[in-house]
Amino acid sequence: MLTAADVAAARDRIRGHLRTTPLLQADASALQRDTPSRHAAAATVWLKLEQLQHTGSFKARGAYNRILTAAAHGQLTDAGVVAASGGSAGLAVAHAAATQAVPARVYVPETAPAVKRAKLADLGATVVAVGTKYADAYDAAMADIAETGALFCHAYDQPEICAGQGTLGAELLEQTGGVDTILVAVGGGGLVAGIAAATEGRAHVVGVEPATIPTLHTALAEGGPVDVDVSGVAADALGATRIGGIAHAVATRTGVTSVLVDDADIVAARTLLWQKFRLVVEHGTAAAPAALLAGAYRPAAGERVAVVLCGANTDPSDLA
Amino acid sequence: MLTAADVAAARDRIRGHLRTTPLLQADASALQRDTPSRHAAAATVWLKLEQLQHTGSFKARGAYNRILTAAAHGQLTDAGVVAASGGSAGLAVAHAAATQAVPARVYVPETAPAVKRAKLADLGATVVAVGTKYADAYDAAMADIAETGALFCHAYDQPEICAGQGTLGAELLEQTGGVDTILVAVGGGGLVAGIAAATEGRAHVVGVEPATIPTLHTALAEGGPVDVDVSGVAADALGATRIGGIAHAVATRTGVTSVLVDDADIVAARTLLWQKFRLVVEHGTAAAPAALLAGAYRPAAGERVAVVLCGANTDPSDLA
Repeated sequence: MLTAADVAAARDRIRGHLRTTPLLQADASALQRDTPSRHAAAATVWLKLEQLQHTGSFKARGAYNRILTAAAHGQLTDAGVVAASGGSAGLAVAHAAATQAVPARVYVPETAPAVKRAKLADLGATVVAVGTKYADAYDAAMADIAETGALFCHAYDQPEICAGQGTLGAELLEQTGGVDTILVAVGGGGLVAGIAAATEGRAHVVGVEPATIPTLHTALAEGGPVDVDVSGVAADALGATRIGGIAHAVATRTGVTSVLVDDADIVAARTLLWQKFRLVVEHGTAAAPAALLAGAYRPAAGERVAVVLCGANTDPSDLA
Repeated sequence: MLTAADVAAARDRIRGHLRTTPLLQADASALQRDTPSRHAAAATVWLKLEQLQHTGSFKARGAYNRILTAAAHGQLTDAGVVAASGGSAGLAVAHAAATQAVPARVYVPETAPAVKRAKLADLGATVVAVGTKYADAYDAAMADIAETGALFCHAYDQPEICAGQGTLGAELLEQTGGVDTILVAVGGGGLVAGIAAATEGRAHVVGVEPATIPTLHTALAEGGPVDVDVSGVAADALGATRIGGIAHAVATRTGVTSVLVDDADIVAARTLLWQKFRLVVEHGTAAAPAALLAGAYRPAAGERVAVVLCGANTDPSDLA
């Protein structure tokens, strides 16, 4: 069971390898549609700028913790590390592996765009394209580790991955001196699990999901992870078909709640972050501030709210 | 003569109206070309994320100080405020005027792009297009204030404007606990003047200019402000034809030095900030980190260096 102690240990382990990402105190009214409503104007809102992390997302925290933990236990061999991801998780593993001077093989479906493969290759990873679906790439990654003994780095559902992501939550509590509520986008759930564990009993964590990918929402309603349909603007980042088992367990234990936002609000929140703050984030990340924009989460007067901006692996062209 | 006391007074005056912009500690090696050289790797580099300020640049600080100072002295009338700028200075004045509920008229040349005029109008300003050159817009602004008694907000060469910009320097010293060196891009000189006054005797300020617009460099060499030719990628933000008198005086008194960077390094630094940090800045702003990238400024081992990222009023399309 993932706890704050696991996150604290992760924090010690990865110290010096990750950026301490800054906070920006935001005018609550700037994050709202039209004129500010009384409750939100009176709330304090912090934006946690984790999209400025190495490789452009929080995923670097978990990847470093997974790989450094293995190294500490003598489990990091010449076979290197393996991931199955065409997105931020793959980039994070490639970055961490390069600094530890071990080879990284990242499995992607053949449909993965050339630009994403090039970024992985730029970080020194070997990119292996297999099949047409993510599941094909995942199966190939499993075959690789079975054959080579390489270390597998899951995109979200491993204890070391979740503990690493949780360091963001611990860092956030330190930087702010404490918050009441943390809004965080949820896909597979590695980040929400880590943050909820790190802040258990100290903050209320609200998972925000696109209505088109309600992995956590459905799991909380059904009493366990179940497959959901995946679609919408945030599918490239949040498109897990079901919430991870660790995330579901931690969410249930710590009282994480879930709110849903629609694609139009996600797009509007991403645009607003650029127009009002000159911050660029990916659509999946924009789900978190979209909860404020859409009123899906309404802070009380005086409430201290942190909004995690977790990634910016996005094309900013449409923000012009 | 602009001093740290003027900046401290400005800071008290504008408190609550401006964002405290965050710092990001950067890997010095990430800001260097190729493999890190020993001296820079050993330096501590802070990026001051002032591009996240209201209206996307530091100009909001000076505009608020100018307008709030006038208000405090009963000099803010129904005639409102006037600026001559199609860029960040105009946006800043429009924003500050709107919050003080006074009308703003911003004079621009008829060549000003529709997108810039629309942004000014969105902030509630009346946009007046006159003539074909910036000088025409400036002359029209002078005629306006002569006739109406409106408050003129210069883009850089007024004491209240410079003192307001200097609050960035005071804030930076507080946030970091002190730095040795501050790298800041220079155009008309309002920001470098304010920062140099704010940090006099406590930090060495280095003005960074495009080689194609050496306003400060030439003034320091010639013993006073002189006109220079203006061209290059940063001309939209740094394209003053000569350094302001206040900036020259403060720079001379406080020992500001100047380094030049070429356009290729400016473009490369802007791209690097996106690729390595997911930060978007305008070309003029990228001149400051370009000094590290190009080796135009080389920190010593252990040196604490702050790089001011002063604006992001830019089209991010080319960063895709």
